[in-house]
Amino acid sequence: MSVVDRGSVGTVRTRFIDLPDPLPLDSGATLAPVRIAYETYGTLAPARDNVVLVCHALSGDAHAAGWSDDPDAPTTVDGMGAAERGRSGLGWWDGMIGPGKAFDTDRHFVVCSNLIGSCRGSTGPNSTNPRTGRPYGGDFPVVTVGDMVRAQRAFLRELGIERVFAASGGSLGGMQALEWAVAYPDAIDHIIPIAATARLGAQGVAWNAIARNAIMSDPDWQSGNYYGTGRSPNAGIKIARMVGHVTYLSETAMVEKFGRELQDREAYSYTLGSPDFQVESYLRYQADTFAKRFDANAYLYISRALTYFDLARTYGGGSLERALAQVRARSLLLSFSSDWLYGPRYSEEIVRALGANGAEARHVMIDATYGHDSFLLEEARMTELIRDFLA
Amino acid sequence: MSVVDRGSVGTVRTRFIDLPDPLPLDSGATLAPVRIAYETYGTLAPARDNVVLVCHALSGDAHAAGWSDDPDAPTTVDGMGAAERGRSGLGWWDGMIGPGKAFDTDRHFVVCSNLIGSCRGSTGPNSTNPRTGRPYGGDFPVVTVGDMVRAQRAFLRELGIERVFAASGGSLGGMQALEWAVAYPDAIDHIIPIAATARLGAQGVAWNAIARNAIMSDPDWQSGNYYGTGRSPNAGIKIARMVGHVTYLSETAMVEKFGRELQDREAYSYTLGSPDFQVESYLRYQADTFAKRFDANAYLYISRALTYFDLARTYGGGSLERALAQVRARSLLLSFSSDWLYGPRYSEEIVRALGANGAEARHVMIDATYGHDSFLLEEARMTELIRDFLA
Repeated sequence: MSVVDRGSVGTVRTRFIDLPDPLPLDSGATLAPVRIAYETYGTLAPARDNVVLVCHALSGDAHAAGWSDDPDAPTTVDGMGAAERGRSGLGWWDGMIGPGKAFDTDRHFVVCSNLIGSCRGSTGPNSTNPRTGRPYGGDFPVVTVGDMVRAQRAFLRELGIERVFAASGGSLGGMQALEWAVAYPDAIDHIIPIAATARLGAQGVAWNAIARNAIMSDPDWQSGNYYGTGRSPNAGIKIARMVGHVTYLSETAMVEKFGRELQDREAYSYTLGSPDFQVESYLRYQADTFAKRFDANAYLYISRALTYFDLARTYGGGSLERALAQVRARSLLLSFSSDWLYGPRYSEEIVRALGANGAEARHVMIDATYGHDSFLLEEARMTELIRDFLA
Repeated sequence: MSVVDRGSVGTVRTRFIDLPDPLPLDSGATLAPVRIAYETYGTLAPARDNVVLVCHALSGDAHAAGWSDDPDAPTTVDGMGAAERGRSGLGWWDGMIGPGKAFDTDRHFVVCSNLIGSCRGSTGPNSTNPRTGRPYGGDFPVVTVGDMVRAQRAFLRELGIERVFAASGGSLGGMQALEWAVAYPDAIDHIIPIAATARLGAQGVAWNAIARNAIMSDPDWQSGNYYGTGRSPNAGIKIARMVGHVTYLSETAMVEKFGRELQDREAYSYTLGSPDFQVESYLRYQADTFAKRFDANAYLYISRALTYFDLARTYGGGSLERALAQVRARSLLLSFSSDWLYGPRYSEEIVRALGANGAEARHVMIDATYGHDSFLLEEARMTELIRDFLA
């Protein structure tokens, strides 16, 4: 792989801004200080009217595009080796951001910031609690998607940006785009929520509860105060990640990728624990890698935010139509046929509610086999739709 | 609830048989001694030609029908209180077994035995290892569905039964019925596998691997040798059960049952751990109950057997058609429209392979909303189909 491809934004580095004011949270608590890790790609127009906000999903970060070789890139998982600490490599949506790409840096100033509650540079449970001088751990306040977006808004103002031309992201990223359109209707022109939902259904609530239970029932979690103890809930976060991983893939994709193929063997081992099947081996490897990269507390807080997200409850007294009544942004919703986590019907529901309010909204279901993960993979088809929409 | 309803088999008691011979296992190991816990309902005909074998699923047991008030019913989960130990109450398929029911005890002699590897009376990981005088724990040999059925066959012979009129069961129970038809084609007349499959797909393998990982990564598992230590992998088996539970339910059923309703509260708690949502509370309650009732090692061994089950691999060199070539039994396969774990396409695949061999086989998909669990719930519709089939 060449480090800087044609169409790449080149080498990038994550930067940081400290918000000037405490952040009021939906829970009633206040978070201060608040640091935001972010990256930008392209050039801010003199009129400051070309900002595209890219929003990341549960385990993402500010490094959305380009090549990062920052050895000091801050992730703060206690006890990690240097090799796992850097946010080096290509950004998580590099195929979508750059000259001539869906989010075209020849035209747009693309901004991606790390969510509060995360562990990838913005203030989260592994940040220092000013009241104790030690990491917050389990004392970090519960945050919501509304809080996350409120922090993004304050952060953009620090960059001198009052208006967002477009906000987009997949999964939790799409929820943030929706929150933007509802919370700041006069400050945003377009939203492109991808593989998103206005609220998790009972099954989504359940998967997230199981993942959190796996972490919180790991004795090494220690009520969240494991930083500096030499122990962390690795077993728990691995189980959480495995559950998540299976929900992100379609069964078809799993059958095509793994089927019942055995891993490095011709016959069953007749043991309980050996990963005889390729899919077992793959899940373990992915979980091990994730546990090194991502902080278990951050997983808990972001998972809780996902679960609480409910536009109808927060803004519409239970009615999604009412919640979306104030939306002024034009909306393009993308979903994937094989996504069984936040499938097409969730996007359809949102578009119906927007349409009932007379808002300009369109939903395109992309026929794709990768399940929920398609928002990271189906770049070519998303690009065409997004370029047309933003043109 | 009246204790003995019309159509009930009445009060029953689990009995036990010790097999006279060691049981050879697919792994190459041998299991001895082997005790089988079982119940019977109805009367064995003089010609011994009216035997219906009912096969239980992962967490089931021999108490399939009638009312049990046996205070000494053996479950052997270490450290359990007496209240959780009895297999009291109604059998797990009571609606299907009794006078005038699907498995009609006025005509049939219905037999249900507990699987080897389980913890509900038959030999399993919590049984005494004759070589050490202590429970097997993690030294119990890995068993397969083939081994389980071989043990059932040996057990039936001890009852003087050489021929099975019909074998039926849901999920893993259906796999046993299929195994019977393939392994003992001349000893069985009918099979009724319900919500079953000839082999788990990649997603099923993954769910089972996650459940086992949750148990085995619980430090209280202690390589399976936790009996008598005062600790057992309760946290792990709870996570395993929660994962299983969600896969047994359809999303539709979960939405109808729980939606996003809160549990005993009007607003979010803004905490990480509180089960704010009804579905969270329900999953925890179910998991707590299950952890008291079921031994984690038994869960591991039976889950591994489920994962290994693969008729095409074992009997057909990879071809299901070839594996089923020797089947002589008439087959009725039932599946449920909302079962996303072992859905209708798995039954369809089996019926196609049976049909290609000229065997008499029929698949009926029942339109039902309860997901995989429908095999325990859709009694009225299953009854009609099964009675016609066995008439």
